[in-house]
Amino acid sequence: MELVEIAIITISLIALLYAGLQAYFILKEDEGTDEMKRIAQAIQEGSRAFMKRQYTTIAIVAIILFVIIAIAFTFYTSLTNGLILALGFAIGAFGSAIAGYIGMHISIRANVRTANKAKEGLQKAFSLAFRGGSVTGMSVVGIALLGISIFYFWLRNPDMMVGFIFGASLISLFARVGGGIYTKGADVGADLVGKVKYGIPEDDPRNPAVIADNVGDNVGDCAGMGADLYETYVVTALASMLLAYLLYGQYSEYVILPLIFGAIGIVATLISIPFVKIGKNKKIVPALHKGIIISSIVAAIGFFVVSYYYLKDNLNAFYAGIIGIFIMAFMVFITEYYTDYKYKPTLETSKASSSGAGVTIITGLAYALQASFLPIIVISLGILISFAIFNGFSDPLNGIFGISIASIAMLSMAGIIISIDSYGPITDNAGGIAEMSGLPEDVRNVTDPLDAVGNTTKAITKGYAIGSAALAALSLFAAYYLTVSTSNVYNASQILKSFEIVNPLVLVGLLIGATLPFFFTSFLMRAVGNAANAIVQEVIRQFDTIKGLMEGKAKPEYGKCVDIVTRTALRELVIPGLIGIVTPIAVGFILGPLALGGLLLGVILSGFALAIMMTVGGGSWDNAKKYIELGNFGGKGSEAHKAAVVGDTVGDALKDTAGPAINPLVKVVNTVSILFIALIIAVHLL
Amino acid sequence: MELVEIAIITISLIALLYAGLQAYFILKEDEGTDEMKRIAQAIQEGSRAFMKRQYTTIAIVAIILFVIIAIAFTFYTSLTNGLILALGFAIGAFGSAIAGYIGMHISIRANVRTANKAKEGLQKAFSLAFRGGSVTGMSVVGIALLGISIFYFWLRNPDMMVGFIFGASLISLFARVGGGIYTKGADVGADLVGKVKYGIPEDDPRNPAVIADNVGDNVGDCAGMGADLYETYVVTALASMLLAYLLYGQYSEYVILPLIFGAIGIVATLISIPFVKIGKNKKIVPALHKGIIISSIVAAIGFFVVSYYYLKDNLNAFYAGIIGIFIMAFMVFITEYYTDYKYKPTLETSKASSSGAGVTIITGLAYALQASFLPIIVISLGILISFAIFNGFSDPLNGIFGISIASIAMLSMAGIIISIDSYGPITDNAGGIAEMSGLPEDVRNVTDPLDAVGNTTKAITKGYAIGSAALAALSLFAAYYLTVSTSNVYNASQILKSFEIVNPLVLVGLLIGATLPFFFTSFLMRAVGNAANAIVQEVIRQFDTIKGLMEGKAKPEYGKCVDIVTRTALRELVIPGLIGIVTPIAVGFILGPLALGGLLLGVILSGFALAIMMTVGGGSWDNAKKYIELGNFGGKGSEAHKAAVVGDTVGDALKDTAGPAINPLVKVVNTVSILFIALIIAVHLL
Repeated sequence: MELVEIAIITISLIALLYAGLQAYFILKEDEGTDEMKRIAQAIQEGSRAFMKRQYTTIAIVAIILFVIIAIAFTFYTSLTNGLILALGFAIGAFGSAIAGYIGMHISIRANVRTANKAKEGLQKAFSLAFRGGSVTGMSVVGIALLGISIFYFWLRNPDMMVGFIFGASLISLFARVGGGIYTKGADVGADLVGKVKYGIPEDDPRNPAVIADNVGDNVGDCAGMGADLYETYVVTALASMLLAYLLYGQYSEYVILPLIFGAIGIVATLISIPFVKIGKNKKIVPALHKGIIISSIVAAIGFFVVSYYYLKDNLNAFYAGIIGIFIMAFMVFITEYYTDYKYKPTLETSKASSSGAGVTIITGLAYALQASFLPIIVISLGILISFAIFNGFSDPLNGIFGISIASIAMLSMAGIIISIDSYGPITDNAGGIAEMSGLPEDVRNVTDPLDAVGNTTKAITKGYAIGSAALAALSLFAAYYLTVSTSNVYNASQILKSFEIVNPLVLVGLLIGATLPFFFTSFLMRAVGNAANAIVQEVIRQFDTIKGLMEGKAKPEYGKCVDIVTRTALRELVIPGLIGIVTPIAVGFILGPLALGGLLLGVILSGFALAIMMTVGGGSWDNAKKYIELGNFGGKGSEAHKAAVVGDTVGDALKDTAGPAINPLVKVVNTVSILFIALIIAVHLL
Repeated sequence: MELVEIAIITISLIALLYAGLQAYFILKEDEGTDEMKRIAQAIQEGSRAFMKRQYTTIAIVAIILFVIIAIAFTFYTSLTNGLILALGFAIGAFGSAIAGYIGMHISIRANVRTANKAKEGLQKAFSLAFRGGSVTGMSVVGIALLGISIFYFWLRNPDMMVGFIFGASLISLFARVGGGIYTKGADVGADLVGKVKYGIPEDDPRNPAVIADNVGDNVGDCAGMGADLYETYVVTALASMLLAYLLYGQYSEYVILPLIFGAIGIVATLISIPFVKIGKNKKIVPALHKGIIISSIVAAIGFFVVSYYYLKDNLNAFYAGIIGIFIMAFMVFITEYYTDYKYKPTLETSKASSSGAGVTIITGLAYALQASFLPIIVISLGILISFAIFNGFSDPLNGIFGISIASIAMLSMAGIIISIDSYGPITDNAGGIAEMSGLPEDVRNVTDPLDAVGNTTKAITKGYAIGSAALAALSLFAAYYLTVSTSNVYNASQILKSFEIVNPLVLVGLLIGATLPFFFTSFLMRAVGNAANAIVQEVIRQFDTIKGLMEGKAKPEYGKCVDIVTRTALRELVIPGLIGIVTPIAVGFILGPLALGGLLLGVILSGFALAIMMTVGGGSWDNAKKYIELGNFGGKGSEAHKAAVVGDTVGDALKDTAGPAINPLVKVVNTVSILFIALIIAVHLL
């Protein structure tokens, strides 16, 4: 092993060490009163129960796929190949599960400690919550980088590692979908029946669904997002490595460049974390911005050093890296613009609430439809510029690798972004625990603003996740393209044997692909509706049968609600999960590799705009409601507030379930195709 | 001129003659009481005023474009060419304006007569309303076929006729957008302030916005839809002719095949119209179905005869024609399934209203997201089969022409479909007039079911319009592709000079294109919000200042509301209109013809699913509300009804403004590109 390789592994271990130490210090913090401990324990039990049952369900699918992969590829290639692909699949899947689990594990412990710390003021509470988030952030990138590195240094062949990508993809699809249905089924259900039907406030301990709601934050926003970004990281790194391998051969220094960029990102994040502190002005958002800015600068310096020394004064990688960081920064900015009530879109949506729920939805939707335009222009420019930097206009394949370097640079920021994101569910839960355990108002005056900022950071991460998912998918698509174009299926000068958009097979693939995100999310929206309805029925049953519940004299049966959402979420995740896996296989085997290529691109094309529309819309409605709750346009309890609550309910399902699930869909469709492409080509050459 | 050419012109004249005669008989019917006449006159004045101002605005844009086209192409080719293109542009635009105007003109006269006829029972009222619709239907197809035929028989060169397509596209874009904003701005505004704020029923004469609302039905659903389908008809026919011309040369019998199919469609529609009658069971929908079924059968026979005799036993055109008719039938069926409360999706949405507005929106949206999947599968199959019928898998270009034959067959059904659609605004207005002029309840018991069916037929037409717009755009795209691929820009074996999806220029074009429908509709959604808000303010002002208005003692100032929506709609149509024209020109000149190709396809890809989502969702929420108003889930005035009204409000903006405007966007983007492609190629070869 070379020095640089040892450095990569060491840095990924440092990330994990940092996460472990932080976790240790966080767990030493005080959990507060007995009441707080009791509530925290209920959330922990619910979260663990869901994760256990979710992973059991996923494990069944994973084992079946493991066997299929092992047999299919043993049969088609060799026993060694079959076993390595299946083993990679298992490791990729396991890494994803671990990353999600650690995120959830620390989040459900940091929440109650943050609530308790809030007694000591905003700065300390913020610090604890952010450190909790950074455990998730550093675990995700550490596990991802370590897993890829060890596996690659053993095999030295990225082509053998597509099983790894598929494993990561599969788990993240299920974790995102399952967690997404859970979190919003519980949230919407709790809101509907609590705020709307019985007129009791959010997080009121009398509401039997309140624990399920808090569990949802952890299994959805925390475990789901962790698994999702772990996967994007793995996919982007391996797709870039695969491209470099296909283009420049096994011994090119470009092959491990993605790993080096990843390691630089970890160092940059670790350097930036101590700077994420609230200053005297008590403003939270600038503290988080500081983290992003400092780690961007450090990463840029790192990219320069690597380009200068390791790549021998070839600064192209540095330039492409800067493009990637710029896209990241822009996605963060634009999502903030569309979702923060400091800016026009959310303010207008908030104002529209005075004219009723219908106009609230129309106005929010109008801005949400708009929100994908500037990002796509920036991403398009990024694609063309990084393509040009790598001399793509004289050597197209080289240029495609340039695009993938930009995407890996964007992904190297995952550590800090996940830290900021995972801070969200911790403060959300902390607010809930403070409310439920009846902590004094000055504590809630600390947890409330922390929670409000969490809404924006969660939206920001989604913007980042979608942008990087699109770029990751494009890298995968490029690798797919290269594989097909070196096969006998392909003949660029014959339309029917090429990826020409006028080839009806490609066209049909594009059409089906562009429709797929719509079809896929329809199941998620219905699942949220179903889960929410189940919760509503259960809560009504409890209020009807448990005497003294409304008066606060009797305790509700929290566990029943947790159980109902768990079952509903697991039942409803099967069909969308299968859609992601079965569609590319079916299109590939029935219509062939060219139609499948169209499908892969089609999913990216409409998926990006749809995902942005859903997540931005949802974030904006949420904050439009928060703005009214600050006392604007009539404040809490006014007609405008009721209208804003409707917007928020719709937005919840869009922003936390349907929208974010498009990311893993886009990637899983691409990874399944890469995995099966050799078989598909073989069948179509018969 | 050959016999077949004379036949085509004669048949298009017969269509116009039929429309004229029907209009004459309708106008001879009694208008009813003085009160009814007064109300009808107010609607007529409002509609005429809007159309006049809208056409004035459009005329300014059209004149500027006329001059630009004439100068640009005189400069680039020759004076003759420049003038012919500009003249074609003027004729195409004028035809579209006339088609829209006639539809509006008859609709605002048939409405009051239908209301009066309702005194004599359901059958007679239905008959009159449908005959009114058929005037619009036959006018649109008659004008379109006559215009294309005369212009073609004069020039004998479809390549010179792209100006004609662009003229038709431009007007339809503006008519759709302007009419769409008007109709739903007025509708949403009137509902918000009437039903929600003052608690007075729909169409109550005390509501100052009620006339504007009725005007909207005519200028949006009637004139807008007329212009839209006129354009699709023109675009599809000319794109097919252009393809045939490029592929088989000037003298091929295929060049006028689209005109022959159009003439067959007219004959089939004329034969089917007398069968559209309500039987003894008083069911309305089956009567309309009969019209579609009979004209489909007659058209199929016609396609067979033409293939057998005119194309000398070459039945390929017949088979492809059957595919087109099948796609039409499927689009009708699927839209009915998703929007009619007889079926699960709308029933479930209706039921969800019991859980509040949020769940109503979530459930409706879930089904709407789903609704594009089966149509895209059917259209994909249609594409592949008609491609295969024309031996595409050995001769791809021939296969592409097969696809365009299927689309022209689908379009030949436009006559009957527009007739059924235009029936909608007439009955909607009739109901309004009956309500406002205080006709007895048994009259309203006739107009109400007629109106309810109108909702479904309007949704059906939108499904048909979107499906045919997508196919029309694909034909245009194929023509665009052929033009570029014979230029020096194109070299299939070099990725960067081909339409390979991996070419980053094509990719960026696809990305921008797929985002465009989202961006474009965002302006329409906001426009509806703005127009509705303006109406709300004005109505509140009138209730505040006009004494005795609420008690029904004083008359509201209807004209003020009409005026306000007119101004808002015309102001708001400019930006979306320009987006459709400027984007392809900018992408073409900046990024080149290959990126532009990607853009054209990208718009179709996401536009289809988005348009279906919006129109189906809107239709479903509307009927979910209607189902509750029949007394289900608590009936009128219940909490469920209030939730359903919110769904309907959101749906109104989606289904009548944003969704349908995607059709002309898709087509105008393609026609602009075809028009300017020679110039763009010239610039990029410099």
